[in-house]
Amino acid sequence: MKRIIGSPGTVSGLLLRIGQFLFASASISTMASAIGFSTYTSFCYLIASMGFQLLWSFGLACLDIYALKRERNLQNPVLLSLFVVGDWVTAMLSLAAACSSAGVVVLYARDMDFCKIHPDLPCRRYEISVLLAFITWLQVSISSHVMFWILASV
Amino acid sequence: MKRIIGSPGTVSGLLLRIGQFLFASASISTMASAIGFSTYTSFCYLIASMGFQLLWSFGLACLDIYALKRERNLQNPVLLSLFVVGDWVTAMLSLAAACSSAGVVVLYARDMDFCKIHPDLPCRRYEISVLLAFITWLQVSISSHVMFWILASV
Repeated sequence: MKRIIGSPGTVSGLLLRIGQFLFASASISTMASAIGFSTYTSFCYLIASMGFQLLWSFGLACLDIYALKRERNLQNPVLLSLFVVGDWVTAMLSLAAACSSAGVVVLYARDMDFCKIHPDLPCRRYEISVLLAFITWLQVSISSHVMFWILASV
Repeated sequence: MKRIIGSPGTVSGLLLRIGQFLFASASISTMASAIGFSTYTSFCYLIASMGFQLLWSFGLACLDIYALKRERNLQNPVLLSLFVVGDWVTAMLSLAAACSSAGVVVLYARDMDFCKIHPDLPCRRYEISVLLAFITWLQVSISSHVMFWILASV
């Protein structure tokens, strides 16, 4: 069993999953509390993508806890392939959602100066939510790289 | 020497690099020919990112031609690590650029209906450029996965 930092069934892997779960939840709640977010397709997509990420990370965190308690080895090729595919899909979706929302935020805050012209727009909340989504993606991308590395060298 | 489709120093690898180069060039030229693109940070970033992609793919295509002509093996760990890092960086940048531009395009074409209200906006060109950027990213992501796989199993 390979013990790379962040590999499944280890404490570091579990902490990474908990981090993903927490940041994804924070991103969703910040965006959902911003008035008028549902007008923007990108922001709705951010919530959907972070929701998917949250469920995935929660599932894998439970699996890590089970493996740690029962001292089970999760590193068989079939399970690893499943983790790799899931992690890659969620990582891509998270990056795509964070970037498309960032595109809209930059347009409003910088290119068009809408945030200054319309002070009632909750621009700060949009920005914080996008930042949290980027942090989530960073953690998922670490997980997915570790998984891919372990699978390729099994 | 591993002969996975798309690996460096093979015909399929060369074709993939040429494809990336062509689609990145097409994306840049379509965006650059759209009036007023420079007002938008996301579109400028798309051009910068595709420009970087174009140079990287061109360099690796030349290296592939050299390896094919001289029948050299490019699969040593140092070169592969360089390819992996470069491919991952350009793939991430391409996806980020494509998604942030897509966010702005969707906002204009769907959420705000700006494309209908202002028919002088070159929305169609923006859309085509973003589509070409996504195709470029797809090809780079194939390359980077292949490189990572070969490096991990060397």
